[in-house]
Amino acid sequence: MTKVQATNITWHHGHVCREDREKLLGQKGVTVWLTGLSASGKSTIAYTLEHALMERGHLAYVLDGDNIRHGLNKNLGFSPEDREENIRRIGEVAKLFTDAGAITITSFISPYKGDRDKVRELMAPGDFIEVYVECPVDVCSERDPKGLYKKAMAGEIKNFTGVNAPYETPDKPELVIHSDTCSVQEAAVQLLELLEKAGKIPAPKE
Amino acid sequence: MTKVQATNITWHHGHVCREDREKLLGQKGVTVWLTGLSASGKSTIAYTLEHALMERGHLAYVLDGDNIRHGLNKNLGFSPEDREENIRRIGEVAKLFTDAGAITITSFISPYKGDRDKVRELMAPGDFIEVYVECPVDVCSERDPKGLYKKAMAGEIKNFTGVNAPYETPDKPELVIHSDTCSVQEAAVQLLELLEKAGKIPAPKE
Repeated sequence: MTKVQATNITWHHGHVCREDREKLLGQKGVTVWLTGLSASGKSTIAYTLEHALMERGHLAYVLDGDNIRHGLNKNLGFSPEDREENIRRIGEVAKLFTDAGAITITSFISPYKGDRDKVRELMAPGDFIEVYVECPVDVCSERDPKGLYKKAMAGEIKNFTGVNAPYETPDKPELVIHSDTCSVQEAAVQLLELLEKAGKIPAPKE
Repeated sequence: MTKVQATNITWHHGHVCREDREKLLGQKGVTVWLTGLSASGKSTIAYTLEHALMERGHLAYVLDGDNIRHGLNKNLGFSPEDREENIRRIGEVAKLFTDAGAITITSFISPYKGDRDKVRELMAPGDFIEVYVECPVDVCSERDPKGLYKKAMAGEIKNFTGVNAPYETPDKPELVIHSDTCSVQEAAVQLLELLEKAGKIPAPKE
């Protein structure tokens, strides 16, 4: 018991509140949900925003295909049911990260309005910021960094969003980024300003 | 462009490293995996550790039945396959939180050695700290805060760990907490010391 007293800790058994974690981190938990076509620039915007937040001392975390499809969702395919379950699980994980106080940035095509709306409903009001990364399909298919559009147009990939599967445009996203005309830096600045206005991060010190 | 320049940010497109987040947080990411019978004291230890870490300025997050079974894993039951998938998903989420730099504390019975070992294999060496919360089943069944042992012994609950389903004791856990003789505060101190020795958190300032 001497050892215990020596730590000089007030012992609690209940949960630490989300507010406690947010105070520690100097920010408020939120999910920035980027949605848009393949090659529209979602991931580049996500990583750029993550870096900008880190430079301002904020904890951000990106959920994307790299850490989700090869991990949590590696037992899911691309059937309609599996696509829905894919987005559902990502939404639940984003909710946990948001509750932990992190600025959570998700980068998934997430083509179906219903699936995105379910994630929004899962979260407390203000916790879900939907960002439509808009880019004409012909611009995306010209970029085509992984050659996926080429394969889809040749019929080698089925159910490829924008080619032979639909993308359902968000009705009321919190932000639309026109990534064909807006630079990635400008996009990140728009997102930082949105997070400031929403009270998730403080304005930078001059 | 004036607006962009005014933010005075160095723009990066690549991933922020785990090390960057850990430096920001002043700690190293880790998963403290508590395993043991129902009513062995896992959750009380988890919340007490979380509070103690918070008081020392560390970001910790508890994954438990409350935020997992009603969320991410609400579409899983208690069949052998579903129990395995339950632990697999929790392991993947814990891995993400660990990568984010958080001290992740999981509180699940997780009765099967094979399932726990798979989570350990998922993570980098040193990222997974297995803690066996050992308590004789008769002590647990006397505590029985939710009346579950009573129901299981009456045959009303099938596959209840310790009564009519096995608990596989960890072979080489990083720590064994004898929760029948050790107070929850002593348990938390043992865990804090373990995290200090593992270099996950600095020793407290005198």
